[in-house]
Amino acid sequence: MPSAVSTTQFRGYAIHDTKNWTSFKLIDFEPKPFEDYDIDIKIEYCGVCGSDVHTITGGWGKPALPIVPGHEIVGKAVRVGSMVSSIKVGDRVGVGAQICSCMNCAHCKNDDEQYCPKRIYTYNSRYHNAERTLSQGGYSTAVRAHEQFVFPIPDEMPLEEAAPMLCAGLTVYSPLVRNGAGKGKKVGIVGVGGLGHFAIQFAKALECDDVVVFSHSPKKRDDAMTLGATDVVFTCKDGFEEPLVGQLDLIICTANVSDSALLRGLMSTLKIHGRLIMVAMPDESLPSLMSTDLAMNGALLGGSLIGSKKEALSMLDLAVRKGVKPWIDVVPMKDCGKAVRAVKDGKIRYRRVLKMDIE
Amino acid sequence: MPSAVSTTQFRGYAIHDTKNWTSFKLIDFEPKPFEDYDIDIKIEYCGVCGSDVHTITGGWGKPALPIVPGHEIVGKAVRVGSMVSSIKVGDRVGVGAQICSCMNCAHCKNDDEQYCPKRIYTYNSRYHNAERTLSQGGYSTAVRAHEQFVFPIPDEMPLEEAAPMLCAGLTVYSPLVRNGAGKGKKVGIVGVGGLGHFAIQFAKALECDDVVVFSHSPKKRDDAMTLGATDVVFTCKDGFEEPLVGQLDLIICTANVSDSALLRGLMSTLKIHGRLIMVAMPDESLPSLMSTDLAMNGALLGGSLIGSKKEALSMLDLAVRKGVKPWIDVVPMKDCGKAVRAVKDGKIRYRRVLKMDIE
Repeated sequence: MPSAVSTTQFRGYAIHDTKNWTSFKLIDFEPKPFEDYDIDIKIEYCGVCGSDVHTITGGWGKPALPIVPGHEIVGKAVRVGSMVSSIKVGDRVGVGAQICSCMNCAHCKNDDEQYCPKRIYTYNSRYHNAERTLSQGGYSTAVRAHEQFVFPIPDEMPLEEAAPMLCAGLTVYSPLVRNGAGKGKKVGIVGVGGLGHFAIQFAKALECDDVVVFSHSPKKRDDAMTLGATDVVFTCKDGFEEPLVGQLDLIICTANVSDSALLRGLMSTLKIHGRLIMVAMPDESLPSLMSTDLAMNGALLGGSLIGSKKEALSMLDLAVRKGVKPWIDVVPMKDCGKAVRAVKDGKIRYRRVLKMDIE
Repeated sequence: MPSAVSTTQFRGYAIHDTKNWTSFKLIDFEPKPFEDYDIDIKIEYCGVCGSDVHTITGGWGKPALPIVPGHEIVGKAVRVGSMVSSIKVGDRVGVGAQICSCMNCAHCKNDDEQYCPKRIYTYNSRYHNAERTLSQGGYSTAVRAHEQFVFPIPDEMPLEEAAPMLCAGLTVYSPLVRNGAGKGKKVGIVGVGGLGHFAIQFAKALECDDVVVFSHSPKKRDDAMTLGATDVVFTCKDGFEEPLVGQLDLIICTANVSDSALLRGLMSTLKIHGRLIMVAMPDESLPSLMSTDLAMNGALLGGSLIGSKKEALSMLDLAVRKGVKPWIDVVPMKDCGKAVRAVKDGKIRYRRVLKMDIE
């Protein structure tokens, strides 16, 4: 095994201006100083996530520039810190949207490390160190992450299929399990896209009785059924919600919901005290509701932030056992500009994965 | 005991035009046909609720006219149907915002009768009978209600103090207990008004560790502390939420929250997966949030609709045991026009109760 330092170049495709958010240029960048719990990963694949687009376009606010996006990262561990116990050099590993947290607060100690107030995201986040190092993402040769945020990839899972699990998969798996998806439950999934196509599969893998897919596009019907839907409802039809009023225990909403009538309709399909968990994070505000829209069935509208390591590991295990797989196309990493454009335009069926090509 | 039929006149103060919503005129009205589970109550007091104002002003939509509002009703049972087992003629009883439901659906069988799709509200609701009888409220001589919605009033509780419990009290008690308020919990109450002044007292009576009151008005501080607050936070101050970020298990919001920054600030004070339950039902939409506002702590924004009979009885029992009492002023029922005006103007400290005066 060659030494980690010599094999790990930190070099990635970066955006320098949010107005030119498809014009990636290679940059070298300095990772945070290596510490005892850190792991360096030589990247082989990185998925393209909607978050990448929200960030590089400035939709979520002005990012630090230049910015290397990418937080669905898989590869091999090439250097492990002296305190790392769960990973060894050469292991197939991955990293999602978070690479560090304080490890000391109640959230970190309670498998809620994704909610740590000192969390560091995989890119566009500054470490609390003296250098205030900026994290850079996985459209690059390597990433350095704390052991807690490095997930071993099961042998049975191809690396390129593991990549999109680590943000898109985990982002829907966590709210499914935290909100009781399983036998005896009727679950709704809004949107058939990068997140939605995982959510349908995981709802099925968790053995929910019904997996009702809401989509604005009749074209998605066959895909939704193939992915595991028990029913598909088209939201473009007035009164789409009527046959389902009061039926669903839980809805995971992976799509941008742009108007109040649609959100109100979705909420009305919930049972008493049912929950709609919004995992789509559009640049715009959610449509507003009346208080009465929530009162009529005592429903709850909630949010969710990625997932914990514990959940990531159980998700990967479930995916292997139940055959959950992303639908991906793999392209060279140099085509990242086209990839983010395609994500923005909603043209991916359903995840694009970049293959490392930096010399 | 005089016969029920002769003593029970159905005559009440009605609004005939939402534009003249303080001009009440006496009308006679026909109750629904008497059935085996029905109880007639000779009204002694009726509380004035914000819902009355929303309804008679047309804020919640055009009501059936003429309309007799009032759904915080107490008095004596004067006629009981042949199947009624829990109430006898002469009992001190009350009725809240609901007087009937189907009694057969899963909600009705599961102590969720307030969520029955066929629920009949105490006023401005039409029965599913052939006559489509319109329900009329408690600014009147009498009300007819199904036994399930008639609550015995504990002997220790003056009738006029019981009245506001039956809507305002129950509306906050139900979401408190359904969302786990009790020992070890930190609860926030937004607003010190008709609902809020009950919510503070019930949160204390339920032995919550902390009862943090949010108010826009520094003038409410002393009242909040007297009612049982452990802390009072003024929401008019920028950054009011900062010392409380991530602290609260549950917030019951009894006030109209008109801007996104305020709602966002309140949501940020919740623990991971904490809940803000909105019980205020303004005429306007809730302010819109970003999906990220909910994601950062996985928080939930929910609604709630009055409460069940089971909850009403446990609330009345708790109120007696722990000394929960509304702060009321009692006025003759003929002053209902002034009373609704004062509620609309936020001038009540904290509940006005009408005393029957119809000859």
